[in-house]
Amino acid sequence: MHPADHVAIVANDGGLPAGTVLPAGMPGAGLILLDAVPQGHKVALCDLPAGAEVRRYNVPIGTARTAIQAGRWVHEKLLDMPGARALTGLPMATQPAPVAAALTGRTFMGFRNADGSVGTRNLLAITATVQCVAGVVAQAVRRIERELLPQFPNVDGVVGLEHSYGCGVAIDAPDAIIPIRTLRHISLNPNFGCEVLVVSLGCEKLQPSRLLPPGSFPIRDGRSAEDGPDTVCLQDAAHIGFMSMLDDIVERARPVLARLNARRREPVPVSELVVGVQCGGSDAFSGVTANPAVGHAADLLVRAGATVMFSENTEVRDAVEQLTSRAASVAVAEAIVRELGWYDRYLERGRVDRSANTTPGNKAGGLSNIVEKAMGSIIKSGSSAISHVLAPGEKLRRDQRGLVFAATPASDFICGTLQLAAGMNLHVFTTGRGTPYGLAECPVIKVATRSELARRWHDLMDLNAGRIADGEQTIEQAGEALFELMLAVASGERTWAEQHQLHNALVLFNPAPVT
Amino acid sequence: MHPADHVAIVANDGGLPAGTVLPAGMPGAGLILLDAVPQGHKVALCDLPAGAEVRRYNVPIGTARTAIQAGRWVHEKLLDMPGARALTGLPMATQPAPVAAALTGRTFMGFRNADGSVGTRNLLAITATVQCVAGVVAQAVRRIERELLPQFPNVDGVVGLEHSYGCGVAIDAPDAIIPIRTLRHISLNPNFGCEVLVVSLGCEKLQPSRLLPPGSFPIRDGRSAEDGPDTVCLQDAAHIGFMSMLDDIVERARPVLARLNARRREPVPVSELVVGVQCGGSDAFSGVTANPAVGHAADLLVRAGATVMFSENTEVRDAVEQLTSRAASVAVAEAIVRELGWYDRYLERGRVDRSANTTPGNKAGGLSNIVEKAMGSIIKSGSSAISHVLAPGEKLRRDQRGLVFAATPASDFICGTLQLAAGMNLHVFTTGRGTPYGLAECPVIKVATRSELARRWHDLMDLNAGRIADGEQTIEQAGEALFELMLAVASGERTWAEQHQLHNALVLFNPAPVT
Ligand SMILES: [Ca+2]
Ligand SMILES: [Ca+2]
Ligand SMILES: [Ca+2]
Ligand SMILES: [Ca+2]
Ligand SMILES: [Ca+2]
Repeated sequence: MHPADHVAIVANDGGLPAGTVLPAGMPGAGLILLDAVPQGHKVALCDLPAGAEVRRYNVPIGTARTAIQAGRWVHEKLLDMPGARALTGLPMATQPAPVAAALTGRTFMGFRNADGSVGTRNLLAITATVQCVAGVVAQAVRRIERELLPQFPNVDGVVGLEHSYGCGVAIDAPDAIIPIRTLRHISLNPNFGCEVLVVSLGCEKLQPSRLLPPGSFPIRDGRSAEDGPDTVCLQDAAHIGFMSMLDDIVERARPVLARLNARRREPVPVSELVVGVQCGGSDAFSGVTANPAVGHAADLLVRAGATVMFSENTEVRDAVEQLTSRAASVAVAEAIVRELGWYDRYLERGRVDRSANTTPGNKAGGLSNIVEKAMGSIIKSGSSAISHVLAPGEKLRRDQRGLVFAATPASDFICGTLQLAAGMNLHVFTTGRGTPYGLAECPVIKVATRSELARRWHDLMDLNAGRIADGEQTIEQAGEALFELMLAVASGERTWAEQHQLHNALVLFNPAPVT
Repeated sequence: MHPADHVAIVANDGGLPAGTVLPAGMPGAGLILLDAVPQGHKVALCDLPAGAEVRRYNVPIGTARTAIQAGRWVHEKLLDMPGARALTGLPMATQPAPVAAALTGRTFMGFRNADGSVGTRNLLAITATVQCVAGVVAQAVRRIERELLPQFPNVDGVVGLEHSYGCGVAIDAPDAIIPIRTLRHISLNPNFGCEVLVVSLGCEKLQPSRLLPPGSFPIRDGRSAEDGPDTVCLQDAAHIGFMSMLDDIVERARPVLARLNARRREPVPVSELVVGVQCGGSDAFSGVTANPAVGHAADLLVRAGATVMFSENTEVRDAVEQLTSRAASVAVAEAIVRELGWYDRYLERGRVDRSANTTPGNKAGGLSNIVEKAMGSIIKSGSSAISHVLAPGEKLRRDQRGLVFAATPASDFICGTLQLAAGMNLHVFTTGRGTPYGLAECPVIKVATRSELARRWHDLMDLNAGRIADGEQTIEQAGEALFELMLAVASGERTWAEQHQLHNALVLFNPAPVT
């Protein structure tokens, strides 16, 4: 905690009863608790008059609704939330972090791709242009798994990129570009080896040539770019009956699998990692254990020349001043303001604001409101200068390295889908309440904020950052352990979600209406 | 076609070449084609000066952009679309159809439910409160299928009700009630036997008690309504590890399966059918073969006391005058205006209008614009008076029978999902271009508009309405054949989509923003 904070967090399993005397050597030492305080919740360290600012992380997380005595439980009903910081008059690139010493020599075992990117997995992806084909693609995936995969042991799996996009989406609406480019860029994720195999219906609005126009991806099989992507079109006159559709997809998959199967992992520098960080099911420990450990690992990655994406617009909105000041240039700061401003207006159209983000689980876990949640969330980004900004669904260029703000909703699945589209080859997800999150497209390392969760979900949590709260590890040590785990997983070690085959859906961000 | 129409449709496979003389006994007999006209496309029957109204279905489908000679191909580039009819000054309940003679004595073999509804399938459904649990539910479904289903042979299957809803949806936004009530009502679909089994994460915004509050469903297993639905909560402290979560879901499913397995099909009157009709991948034949056949079958169902839902707001918008005049009462007409007006404003917020509905496939199939598409689409509703209107996600009451306008987007998956929520136990889907649509929750009868498609997709199309265009069947005969097929499928005969296990996703209509 920061020395100027008015509150401290109760770390003990089960919380602390009223009457407890806070122990020596800790913030508030000697203070007597006037209320029972649940684990992860806040206790007032000093008397706070009604209307006073209440600071945590050295920022005001609210004002006291009534007078709060030292030793009281400071829960969300005692605080009024501050208004959102205006997006004008912000400090623009005033405090970009100095470039830290390069971290050299570390490698992982990855799959090099034709476009220069590197995969951490070797997957056959089947792109669907439209939800109409999802049932057929799912059956084709089952047949490929059963009949073909055993012949291609170097291929890690086959993934049908199912999504809900259909002709219902108003394709010419101003915002419809977001789901379209998201689908395009997911097909080009580094874990799919630059191989594109499309299943199309035939009459859909989002035709294969619109989804993947010439030049959007490298052609690997000698065809001309103008032919568009390798596509099985179900409405093709050549398809007589359902089985001929399935047979066609299976046969078209065979040469792609053969090319993927010929690849081998090789040592590549850490700079080829593209790590998306996210938190979900957050509690008050997220901001003091798991997220700071992720932040430290993010700094190590950036020092090694890798790319780290952080996201979740509503969870950075209240930290906008930190973000714009940390931008590497005024142009980057302006891009941050542009993305967050666009999102403010998007929420306004639906008559909500950023406060719609917090959940009952957040509050039960001790997070009073979105300001406090945001301060804990943004710690995942570490301390590097912010070097680039991506709009939703955009893909990183090869020269966009370092710490990147990829503007996305905070929804775990929408954020993960957009980070996949951006080119993520490794996902790190912190959780306090616990979630069995996993993706078929990319390994997800799950980091628990508390030891109790890590013990209970022993075969779902890949790392326990609760050891920081237990005093067993420093933030730096937990961050280094996470960095080492990232290299191992990137090299092929399977996460718990992979072992159990836990796959969440791709969920598109579609701000456009459906017809 | 209507005698006042200015255009006729070329029915022939492969279309007709320029120079063809239209045969005797047909509209435009003796006319020489000045262009090649593709199958399903329109030919001008008379000279149309620039700016003239062009009528089909006896309504203006547009105005001639330039002078069009008799015999020319009338494609979408030659027509300007008329503006949308204002929602004021409409004829309100001026022409409700007279009540037709009751059709009595017909039954099907269905599963009677505790709430009075009737299932056409006997399915175990597992409700998910949030996308977070989807990976775990999918693994549980696989184990239940493998380990339990063989012991319960009267149960047709187990369905995980996966959806994309998550904490990202702004739950207090004015429109967020739509996805919430949709999920609630899908769990209560008649094909799930009034059994509710919920898998919850624990920290989600949409808590089980908010999704399924006391009174929203009948309790079957002796628990008190205040306990809420039978729920496996993954974050329960009792769950030590992933396997204990799976074991818990599997064990909780066992008594539900036993209750479902004890049920038997019994003869029930046709009045217990709740049929949702929809079209997708439409062509110019949709409005002259499949949709009129569905309309005739809809009239038979209504005469038998059953419920028929038609939907697809953007595809009825241009027929609003027909709808309000056919309403059974002024209140029903006002509800139609309310729903279509709400939808107009929803589209406006996203800066599109109803014309965003048409697809390249529609146009290639001969549908020039949404007006022409709408006139062909609405024929599915038959000729009965419209007796009720449902807002998106609402569930039919037991006393809401007859022809119902269930207001939904036209997107096949969103419309199907909302019709499931409304209580659909049988789905009829017409297609011209062809789509392999299917749902895990409800049988889908697919009706082809053309014989060529029915021949090519012989094991995907359940009925060929193309026989009408071929002169082999009248609309009435095709409608009667569809009516008989509906009774057979409702009684357990499996559709092609069921035989191939083709399952499209549930797609929620969420007009609220995501955070
Ligand atoms: Ca988060
Ligand atoms: Ca998140
Ligand atoms: Ca339609
Ligand atoms: Ca439709
Ligand atoms: Ca799915």
